[in-house]
Amino acid sequence: MKTRLTEAFGLTHPIVSAPMAMAAGGRLAAAVSHAGGLGLIGGGYGDADWIEGAFAEAGNAAVGCGFITWKLADNPAVLDRVLARDPAALCLSFGDPAPFARRIAEAGVPLMAQVQTLRDAQRAAEVGARVIVAQGSEAGGHGERRGTITLVPEVADWLAAHSPDTLLLAAGGIADGRGLAAALMLGADGVLIGSRLWASREAAVSEAMTGAAIAATGDATIRSTVMDAARGLRWPARYTARVLRNKVTDRWHDDPEGLRADPEARADWAAGWQAGDPERASTFVGEAAGLIHDRPPAAGIISRITAEAEILLKRGNSYNQSLS
Amino acid sequence: MKTRLTEAFGLTHPIVSAPMAMAAGGRLAAAVSHAGGLGLIGGGYGDADWIEGAFAEAGNAAVGCGFITWKLADNPAVLDRVLARDPAALCLSFGDPAPFARRIAEAGVPLMAQVQTLRDAQRAAEVGARVIVAQGSEAGGHGERRGTITLVPEVADWLAAHSPDTLLLAAGGIADGRGLAAALMLGADGVLIGSRLWASREAAVSEAMTGAAIAATGDATIRSTVMDAARGLRWPARYTARVLRNKVTDRWHDDPEGLRADPEARADWAAGWQAGDPERASTFVGEAAGLIHDRPPAAGIISRITAEAEILLKRGNSYNQSLS
Repeated sequence: MKTRLTEAFGLTHPIVSAPMAMAAGGRLAAAVSHAGGLGLIGGGYGDADWIEGAFAEAGNAAVGCGFITWKLADNPAVLDRVLARDPAALCLSFGDPAPFARRIAEAGVPLMAQVQTLRDAQRAAEVGARVIVAQGSEAGGHGERRGTITLVPEVADWLAAHSPDTLLLAAGGIADGRGLAAALMLGADGVLIGSRLWASREAAVSEAMTGAAIAATGDATIRSTVMDAARGLRWPARYTARVLRNKVTDRWHDDPEGLRADPEARADWAAGWQAGDPERASTFVGEAAGLIHDRPPAAGIISRITAEAEILLKRGNSYNQSLS
Repeated sequence: MKTRLTEAFGLTHPIVSAPMAMAAGGRLAAAVSHAGGLGLIGGGYGDADWIEGAFAEAGNAAVGCGFITWKLADNPAVLDRVLARDPAALCLSFGDPAPFARRIAEAGVPLMAQVQTLRDAQRAAEVGARVIVAQGSEAGGHGERRGTITLVPEVADWLAAHSPDTLLLAAGGIADGRGLAAALMLGADGVLIGSRLWASREAAVSEAMTGAAIAATGDATIRSTVMDAARGLRWPARYTARVLRNKVTDRWHDDPEGLRADPEARADWAAGWQAGDPERASTFVGEAAGLIHDRPPAAGIISRITAEAEILLKRGNSYNQSLS
């Protein structure tokens, strides 16, 4: 499938893997890139050693790296270390990319900016992002409130009028060929996929958490702040994270400050996280959980998505038969 | 455009107008049906006189009617009055359709059930709904939390496995041809459109509220309960309504009980509502506000949406050029 994204990045498929903190290590990113997409390492909170390990794991695959923008400000040196590796793309999410945009541009690395509102998209384009990732609330992990199906075309309209060379990816809720085909209809040049690749063989996710997501329907998730309260992270208030509902969200969703103040409960979450236990810690997966029924290798996921999308896009013409 | 929906209901376009309480009177419903879609009168809270007037206004157009399910239980007689008019469809939203499904079936009227979760969709199919409307959180007015882009394919999968003859519409955030084309890719047989038709010449909406929505971006809406607090309505807790953010939501969103207990503030909302004032009352529009830039006749909206979708569906094939 050819789109402006595949042309610009030399890809076979218009698919980028989400830089999921912890879950997206070098194995997953490399598998996605080897399969013809673009794999991103989840640089997350900026643990330089973890990131170095992930790049090493990715070997000679052309992969990129993503960071949590507001956290990167605490440790900007890690950005330089990653840029020195000449990543295929540098993705910034959750915060103003402006303070980092110039260094990324000077390094000759394409900036992907993941945004959650039209306003963020405008800002990202203005500071020179090569790619805007419009992320809807359906997404797993951190995000905000707008839905993919309105955010993508609205950003597309703004870019067409003000920054037509900026590429646009849809993110949030896209887990199969239907989602990819829909994203292209909405005006995206491709998709950024999280949850579906989170549930792949190469993702650094426990079998138990993956299994819980596979067993869940899309009704079973919630946007919450319990996981940040448990970890003592102070995310900007506008962002929440989508996870599977469980005993932790049942108990603490309406009282995250209570969780912050409860060392025992926090220690239990941390132990559960260490063990990959979906009951005691948080399983970061989106509404697409309801579309995920297995844990194949990433390459199989990507070929399945693109094959399904190609069939749907061809069949799309049949809706027009009344015209002929 | 031919789909299972157009075949089943004898439509030219796979478009149903949302039965928006107050806004969708007989004029709008008739205009949609005359334009080749299916128009639904917004029976809402079940004001029998208003509904009679709307049917009279619709004249000989084949229109349907929608009700708020949990409210219909208070006044079931109004359902019989509407069924006696042989509506093209009877749409139930926000509550269990089971208590009414049999009477609707006995009247030979197709039941459309609007749902917000997979679980609701299962229930609606089990009680015999002819059409499931999967409504995402992007929608204006009342709704719930799931996003359109995941809810539609997940419901489609369930229906394919368990109730393959039940039709599926996508709702929430669909305002142009991109949305319609995306909905078809996601597995829907058509779309139910609210906000875009709310901002049509025939909708019973003030110029000021329509203008506020046209001026707004999709970032400017919020799901809240302030409008129900202001009106003294006790909606089931799971439902909130999407409206434009304004002074009312700024002041009361986090304190709806305070608004309920403040007769002066409630009277001000009511006076603002009467005046169609977007600052003092609530403007019920979805995230699609960011895709709405004018207020044309409904027929123009429908022809624009379908023409754009047809072009996109044809062009969809071009993504496959690498296959040939």
